[in-house]
Amino acid sequence: MKSLSHEYLEDAIEDSRPYASKGTVNKSLPDFDGTKQDLLGISIITNDQTCYSGGDSKQYVPMQSTSKIISLMLALHDFGKDRVFQAVGMEPMGDFFNSISQLESYDTSKPFNPMINAGAIAVSALIKGHDNKNRFDRYLKFLRRITNNYDLDLDEKVYEAEIANGSRNRALAYFMHSTGSLVSDVEEALDLYFRINSVMMCCEDFAKVGTFLSRGGRAPDNDEKLIPPHHLRTVKAIMMTSGMYNSSGRYAVEVGFPCKSGVSGSIIGVVPGIMGIGIVGPAIDEKGNSTAGGALLRKISQDLELNMFGTGHFYGRTPEDR
Amino acid sequence: MKSLSHEYLEDAIEDSRPYASKGTVNKSLPDFDGTKQDLLGISIITNDQTCYSGGDSKQYVPMQSTSKIISLMLALHDFGKDRVFQAVGMEPMGDFFNSISQLESYDTSKPFNPMINAGAIAVSALIKGHDNKNRFDRYLKFLRRITNNYDLDLDEKVYEAEIANGSRNRALAYFMHSTGSLVSDVEEALDLYFRINSVMMCCEDFAKVGTFLSRGGRAPDNDEKLIPPHHLRTVKAIMMTSGMYNSSGRYAVEVGFPCKSGVSGSIIGVVPGIMGIGIVGPAIDEKGNSTAGGALLRKISQDLELNMFGTGHFYGRTPEDR
Amino acid sequence: MKSLSHEYLEDAIEDSRPYASKGTVNKSLPDFDGTKQDLLGISIITNDQTCYSGGDSKQYVPMQSTSKIISLMLALHDFGKDRVFQAVGMEPMGDFFNSISQLESYDTSKPFNPMINAGAIAVSALIKGHDNKNRFDRYLKFLRRITNNYDLDLDEKVYEAEIANGSRNRALAYFMHSTGSLVSDVEEALDLYFRINSVMMCCEDFAKVGTFLSRGGRAPDNDEKLIPPHHLRTVKAIMMTSGMYNSSGRYAVEVGFPCKSGVSGSIIGVVPGIMGIGIVGPAIDEKGNSTAGGALLRKISQDLELNMFGTGHFYGRTPEDR
Amino acid sequence: MKSLSHEYLEDAIEDSRPYASKGTVNKSLPDFDGTKQDLLGISIITNDQTCYSGGDSKQYVPMQSTSKIISLMLALHDFGKDRVFQAVGMEPMGDFFNSISQLESYDTSKPFNPMINAGAIAVSALIKGHDNKNRFDRYLKFLRRITNNYDLDLDEKVYEAEIANGSRNRALAYFMHSTGSLVSDVEEALDLYFRINSVMMCCEDFAKVGTFLSRGGRAPDNDEKLIPPHHLRTVKAIMMTSGMYNSSGRYAVEVGFPCKSGVSGSIIGVVPGIMGIGIVGPAIDEKGNSTAGGALLRKISQDLELNMFGTGHFYGRTPEDR
Repeated sequence: MKSLSHEYLEDAIEDSRPYASKGTVNKSLPDFDGTKQDLLGISIITNDQTCYSGGDSKQYVPMQSTSKIISLMLALHDFGKDRVFQAVGMEPMGDFFNSISQLESYDTSKPFNPMINAGAIAVSALIKGHDNKNRFDRYLKFLRRITNNYDLDLDEKVYEAEIANGSRNRALAYFMHSTGSLVSDVEEALDLYFRINSVMMCCEDFAKVGTFLSRGGRAPDNDEKLIPPHHLRTVKAIMMTSGMYNSSGRYAVEVGFPCKSGVSGSIIGVVPGIMGIGIVGPAIDEKGNSTAGGALLRKISQDLELNMFGTGHFYGRTPEDR
Repeated sequence: MKSLSHEYLEDAIEDSRPYASKGTVNKSLPDFDGTKQDLLGISIITNDQTCYSGGDSKQYVPMQSTSKIISLMLALHDFGKDRVFQAVGMEPMGDFFNSISQLESYDTSKPFNPMINAGAIAVSALIKGHDNKNRFDRYLKFLRRITNNYDLDLDEKVYEAEIANGSRNRALAYFMHSTGSLVSDVEEALDLYFRINSVMMCCEDFAKVGTFLSRGGRAPDNDEKLIPPHHLRTVKAIMMTSGMYNSSGRYAVEVGFPCKSGVSGSIIGVVPGIMGIGIVGPAIDEKGNSTAGGALLRKISQDLELNMFGTGHFYGRTPEDR
Repeated sequence: MKSLSHEYLEDAIEDSRPYASKGTVNKSLPDFDGTKQDLLGISIITNDQTCYSGGDSKQYVPMQSTSKIISLMLALHDFGKDRVFQAVGMEPMGDFFNSISQLESYDTSKPFNPMINAGAIAVSALIKGHDNKNRFDRYLKFLRRITNNYDLDLDEKVYEAEIANGSRNRALAYFMHSTGSLVSDVEEALDLYFRINSVMMCCEDFAKVGTFLSRGGRAPDNDEKLIPPHHLRTVKAIMMTSGMYNSSGRYAVEVGFPCKSGVSGSIIGVVPGIMGIGIVGPAIDEKGNSTAGGALLRKISQDLELNMFGTGHFYGRTPEDR
Repeated sequence: MKSLSHEYLEDAIEDSRPYASKGTVNKSLPDFDGTKQDLLGISIITNDQTCYSGGDSKQYVPMQSTSKIISLMLALHDFGKDRVFQAVGMEPMGDFFNSISQLESYDTSKPFNPMINAGAIAVSALIKGHDNKNRFDRYLKFLRRITNNYDLDLDEKVYEAEIANGSRNRALAYFMHSTGSLVSDVEEALDLYFRINSVMMCCEDFAKVGTFLSRGGRAPDNDEKLIPPHHLRTVKAIMMTSGMYNSSGRYAVEVGFPCKSGVSGSIIGVVPGIMGIGIVGPAIDEKGNSTAGGALLRKISQDLELNMFGTGHFYGRTPEDR
């Protein structure tokens, strides 16, 4: 087992960066061009709040689908588990994240899970607020609190690109409206979804979200319990089975702890009780996951023995399976 | 947190047994009739090999789909990860375990994962042997070794029922043969699959399989390493994302450790590094999982704090999320 | 074989009207209530322009999906067969008319055929015009010309109901936009589609559309050829294989000539070279076809020997199959 | 309009033969090799029993899926329409002829229609007989009678190839058995299906089947009525909507009369009341239809004005649409 340090992370970045050439940068990143294909950064914040970083850890990208775990935490907090899972299922789905067919099959009353686009639109529509602005303000306030970064905000250009490229998400939302699984105003639900996807974060911010989950829901500044741990267990379990689009099964095998990715090449990882991880690597594969980021996750899981399906952990237990 | 003991387990059994009335006993149990609907038993074997039991823990039932993890271990051992996952995927699938549609969609080269029937037929066909008898003998020998129970054997009546009710599995196997994802002799592959599903075990045997996984692959009698730990991590990860049919996501949320069920009402559970669990409760729900067994798993996960997505564990760590 | 007359049609109406009790009136008919469930009317106009009517033949209802054949004629006229069938397929589909799954399967480049909603949205978007108003004006002008009824117009209340209940069609249109199979402005395409569905017609108008098809595309007043006959053969063939939603196969067997239905309970029928038929019967079955109207079609096909798959016809040939 | 003659057919063959280079010869033709790619033959038998032939009209090939209309006629004769359509639907399906997914969707009680493999297996299982040999004998006797060719028989080599390549059909049959939509012995049903597909015919034989349908079911030698005309209308209607696999819609548009094809490159065509057509052209497209045979059908439909959706016919009516 290797030790976690800045030097280790810089080495790991250099090992993984070549995988960026296998991916492509998504159109949801309007400012990016070919010169940023090779970007790769990581931050790890352990449960004692020590932060280790490497590579392009200061690069800001939109949250995109990593926002799905923020919405889910807020919706669980606002309405509780029963109400949330009336609106959305909790089963993984062996299909693409923007599949519309699955909405029509088996059970049209709700989308499969909160990690696919349809499910996330339905979940974010549950966030409380007297209007859409208020809902987004609550989202942003919560995100700033758990990252302790009060500069976080949406990027207008990204938000406009979301709207411009939003036909598939519109189709999902209107379909759910037609079956009754989305009862709120469709255009408002979409606008909120586009907004929360457009908030810009860097590796340290993504890692802080991970640490919020690995520390059981306490605020990073004053340890206030913001979300009950049982809701966070739900979020982490769903990340494990469904967080990495239709490569979630592969990540469970090869990485072995809960992760959530976005098409901006961002990934939030959580080793429960141990650490949070934030990665940015904009070149993504055809499933929607950062190619270099995935390689980096596999490497640190193995080097630092973070795989939860192993029989030993890196923090002092006597491992049985070395 | 409660303490693990025989008394605790007997109480937990009595709390969970009423859920049996919500399920039905599968036709793959030819000897069972209405009087056995309420059966429920459990054995837990901790990593130090202490065994705790409760309820009808001596009731033998066929392995059915719990055999899928034995086949997967043997195939990984015989051929390695690369070859096995050429034959079968590792993604969860939001569909019924005997779905044939999914074989025709996206990628006809292989079934979604080794925990669905199609995948398990393909995986068991990989088990080495010069003929079908030899393959089954190797399976049985391995199973006896890891359970340390040399009386385990198939039940002829169950095996005949498997053949008689085998049309769906035949359809799956012939379909895979037609697409080239099953290259071996179809009737031999089916016969082996029917045989391994027909081996009879009781709670303690199921628990021992779990403990073999939680202890990193060492034989229970002499600690010999039979299967490398990295193969077992693969098995446990796939159990987590796909082990409980199309309720796997729900079990990840509500139980939070790897499990595999069979339509005989059997369940094998694994808390990595901690314990193996064996449950028998023949009344199953429409997804194929024991109704009372599922209630029992939810209860012990909560009472004994076994949810891997929690931030503390029951074996001495200072938990952060109480 | 019976003779066509007003008396015959009145008798046929009375025989068929009881089937209305098996259907339900669609919400796209805002003015209708339970008292209109039993409405049933028919007009038949033979190729010599004699008109026979029976029952509630003066009842006006919105065109709904019967508009699909008008759009298809106009699009074929404006762009020709090659361009139209770049935008839409010509295969029947064993699925519901508003299915979205099929858009995602096999070939996302275009919907299956012009008779399903997705296909009709794509086809109507092809109608030439410098703006949406102009496109609808051209549609209406053409419809008035071929029916020789210059009073035809849309009903504002129906149009508003179309918009209010339009989520499924919005989903279809945005999905097609996301895959590139609908390149025009989505909201404009939907608005045009909602407008053309909202034009009100009665049995005689529907029959005149049928006669336009049975007479090879000549204007009813001055015999001017408005659409080349080869385009009309295309329209009639597609009506035969796909005109009656996912009962099209049944109608080919039981009626045996091209028909197109709408959820308003309207049906346009064509016996090529012989006659056009218009039916209104608002109570529809779960597939979307008028229950009493279907019974009436079966009866007149049999009584008047109109089934094209028979070996004799009613207009003077020596039939071989009596 | 051109005139039907041997010379005309030879010219039409030469025009169409080049399309053979776009297809491939199916493995169900064990004796064929690259040298037979360009084969193309046609026979047309008008209702007055005059026979016109061109090209390789003496080439024998297995019936393959053209057998489906013989089975359907026999089953309708043996059991009547109600019973047959309890076992199989009558809707076209926008999917490949050997699709298994559709068996699992919407309605697992029966396959979509008698022209897809699953439906034809279910229909042929209905043919009466005290054992499988007797069922096949009845099939062969009926086929010999309607073609007036008492030399027709199965080819052992083709039959063996059917068995050897039969995995997909086995999968379909076992799947239907598992859902209860095929209740007879699966292996017997498959054996009968393989046998009837293996009967060898040439263009004249195929044309005679067509003429049997166009003449209303009378024996070619003594005009005895063998099958009631109403059953034949059913068969022709289903050929129109579903006879050419998932190009049926295209053939309705481009050819415009009922046809049924087989992967041997055979096609049976019917112009009701007018003529039967038999074509052999072994090179087939990816849908399963003869490429050169399809071109030939399009040509003769246009040249001889055989499209039923036109408003005039070639036999003396005053056409309205020239």
